[in-house]
Amino acid sequence: MTERGDLAEPRPHEELADESLISAGMEQAESSLDEDDRLKPEFLSAVLDAVDEGDIDHARELVSPLHPADIADLLELTPSEQRGDVAAALGDLVGAEVLSELNDYVRDDLIGSLAPEQVAEFASELDTDDAVAIIEDMEEADQQAVLEAMEPEDRAAIESALSYPEESAGRLMQRDLVAVPEHMTVGQVIDYLRDNGDLTRDFWEIFVVDEGHKPIGTCQLSWVLTCPRGVAMADLMKREQTLIPVDMDQEEVALRFQKYALISAAVVDGSGRLVGMITVDDIVHIISEEAGEDILRLSGAGEGDINEPVMDSYRARVRWLLTNLLTALVASTIIGIFEHTIEQMVALATLMPIVAGVGGNAGSQTMAVTVRALATNQITGSNARRTILREIRVALLNGCTVALVLGLGVGLVFHNVALGGVIAAAMMTNIVTAGLAGAAVPLAFDRMNLDPAVASSIFVTMITDSMGFFAFLGLATAAGLTG
Amino acid sequence: MTERGDLAEPRPHEELADESLISAGMEQAESSLDEDDRLKPEFLSAVLDAVDEGDIDHARELVSPLHPADIADLLELTPSEQRGDVAAALGDLVGAEVLSELNDYVRDDLIGSLAPEQVAEFASELDTDDAVAIIEDMEEADQQAVLEAMEPEDRAAIESALSYPEESAGRLMQRDLVAVPEHMTVGQVIDYLRDNGDLTRDFWEIFVVDEGHKPIGTCQLSWVLTCPRGVAMADLMKREQTLIPVDMDQEEVALRFQKYALISAAVVDGSGRLVGMITVDDIVHIISEEAGEDILRLSGAGEGDINEPVMDSYRARVRWLLTNLLTALVASTIIGIFEHTIEQMVALATLMPIVAGVGGNAGSQTMAVTVRALATNQITGSNARRTILREIRVALLNGCTVALVLGLGVGLVFHNVALGGVIAAAMMTNIVTAGLAGAAVPLAFDRMNLDPAVASSIFVTMITDSMGFFAFLGLATAAGLTG
Repeated sequence: MTERGDLAEPRPHEELADESLISAGMEQAESSLDEDDRLKPEFLSAVLDAVDEGDIDHARELVSPLHPADIADLLELTPSEQRGDVAAALGDLVGAEVLSELNDYVRDDLIGSLAPEQVAEFASELDTDDAVAIIEDMEEADQQAVLEAMEPEDRAAIESALSYPEESAGRLMQRDLVAVPEHMTVGQVIDYLRDNGDLTRDFWEIFVVDEGHKPIGTCQLSWVLTCPRGVAMADLMKREQTLIPVDMDQEEVALRFQKYALISAAVVDGSGRLVGMITVDDIVHIISEEAGEDILRLSGAGEGDINEPVMDSYRARVRWLLTNLLTALVASTIIGIFEHTIEQMVALATLMPIVAGVGGNAGSQTMAVTVRALATNQITGSNARRTILREIRVALLNGCTVALVLGLGVGLVFHNVALGGVIAAAMMTNIVTAGLAGAAVPLAFDRMNLDPAVASSIFVTMITDSMGFFAFLGLATAAGLTG
Repeated sequence: MTERGDLAEPRPHEELADESLISAGMEQAESSLDEDDRLKPEFLSAVLDAVDEGDIDHARELVSPLHPADIADLLELTPSEQRGDVAAALGDLVGAEVLSELNDYVRDDLIGSLAPEQVAEFASELDTDDAVAIIEDMEEADQQAVLEAMEPEDRAAIESALSYPEESAGRLMQRDLVAVPEHMTVGQVIDYLRDNGDLTRDFWEIFVVDEGHKPIGTCQLSWVLTCPRGVAMADLMKREQTLIPVDMDQEEVALRFQKYALISAAVVDGSGRLVGMITVDDIVHIISEEAGEDILRLSGAGEGDINEPVMDSYRARVRWLLTNLLTALVASTIIGIFEHTIEQMVALATLMPIVAGVGGNAGSQTMAVTVRALATNQITGSNARRTILREIRVALLNGCTVALVLGLGVGLVFHNVALGGVIAAAMMTNIVTAGLAGAAVPLAFDRMNLDPAVASSIFVTMITDSMGFFAFLGLATAAGLTG
């Protein structure tokens, strides 16, 4: 899906050298990607083989046409034991841009093998936010070594970024931005931009500030370009703007970019002064991360990254499984209470997992819906009660249907109407309980400012399991069922 | 987090009228939002009360400061039975922008109550993509009525958009864009933009096209603004560009925007001609939708929108629960095989849910990780096998830990070493099986081009349940355990 490039053309911008390098072979790059934009296995093994055989030139020739994002994918797909060699072979093809595109675990792995000077060199090539992403995860000592190897200016920018809490706007923002006083005219702004080549080359909006460097308006570049030179920025800018406090959590920032469809936003410090800018391209991956996290949290899979070291995954998940073991004991204890009933009719033991299992499923349906709605700010105090009632309505309908099918089936198979009635009643009870718990538990945790995705499923599962066994065996006992 | 506006200032652009309206009361709007940018319940009820009491002016006064996205939230938070009245009371405050921000279900609900002419009026105010979003879900007949009520030009644009498959780039793109021939200079482009006020006002890149109107390069507005008038677009533009085929699925489009950090991209038809443009602000909500969908699919919650009509939710979920009922029967049948063993030792019935439950949990952890990795294109043929092996390694560690704890516990509580050994071995077996299934099943479905999120969990649950009961009761039988 990419156009053929042309090397002959001269270009005014430094960046263009490697752009043309990329574009030059785009039609090759094309053939290295499958229909989903993923690197083809054949291509990867071709590169790996070349490296193994020490045919470095061939490896570089294969890789050089790739976009930095694809080179990053290549390194991620390379088995970790070969990664060092491949990176070494590719040399300068693994540039700063590639590093900033790399999966965190893979990057830390690679960076570990680099000298502080090299890391410093990479970092100085990047926007502050990308440089910070590379440096923030390093050991304190290595971090210092890298910072000392950097130019004072770059170093200062990164150090100030690191002074903000992790995952905050201060870490995401870049300091290179264009801010002008409101009395400037469109013409003056354009001249100013032309005369200052050292300004950042990638920006989408111009921020208008007052004497105190406080943002008072934002102006899209398209407005500047479509207006006569004489118009004052004050008359062109949009005064209603969404400002990002420097200490705001990145998830909040992402939601705000989404809600107000922002392309870039001004970041302000406690006193309201403009300290940086966040652009949407730094946000998209956070939006998808945050939205994708819940599925991992609900299942207790921790970071859930396939590049995470095995021991880390183990530590994250075993905790969850052991907690789950405790909740399973609760269910088990409840069954224990009815041992006598089971002794009289072992068929109950064969049927009881159905009631618990289907109930658990109904619970996770409601829970998934509620957790998503909370994550996207769709639920507030105004509609929480309504949401629960809605889920109970759905549960009643589901309960009737499933209970009917199950009750009839069991009644016929076991030639036992009472048993059919008991399991139907138990199923109904458990699905409605599941609907209630699946909605109420996440809402309760949210109200307590706990992450509903992390804590909910343990409780909901415990509730649906216990209720499943209790309702079924309890009703069976009450009905005096015997084999 | 928004600045105080100023009404006095004159502005050259039509839009500015309502912008200043919004900004005028931003400090009020502020007070209507909580720290998470959600409307405060007090504020909502104040508006609803005003409407109930027929004090329309007060209601409008309260709402007018809000950003369209917040007015949309207000309508979503309003109980459906009152929604019509509230919308009617707010009148023109519920503009086209608000409609395009509304949740699909809420919007369809509202639109149903509008006359075709009104809908047509809204639609013509919007970019094609937003207009299409409003119209595409309508009944065939209503759709026709609306289209007939529109200006021929707008109508043509929308009809051509509707001619593309749902959820395709053709539906997402807008037709208003800026495309120039490569021989034009920066100065000529600026003059051209100034002279054509009727051009779209919101664009971020200029597309450079050849005589055949095929895109040959893209130029960020910031590059145009930082370059002298004499530079030719051909020398300024970036030739390596990511083009979007008009029939590409929106999920692919979203992944591409993410991977290459795009702000806008050219959409081309089959013959490579430039037919439209997609901007990142139309993509962010798709990115988050697509990333958030998996959690709903894994649990079989369908669309999983809290605004979805109860009957739709019922239909979507009950299907899943009934399927789950069948898989539960498999587990139940397996238990049936061992009825005799259970009769001899009822304690087995109390313990068997533990093995199945914790195993199921381990399975969903691995499944969540694998589904996420597939959704983000992290897994290809190159690392699929490695991913499964990795998950098995984690499973072995988890299995040893949980089996040890459970085995010791059961052995001590029941003063029965054999029973402890049996449950430990069963737990180990089931967790490893879960790890294998949790990774292999989604990968298999993906290989078959089926959505791994939808189909996997049913199978994984069935496998972990059955294996849990089979391993535990089977080993118990083999060990000849009796109470």
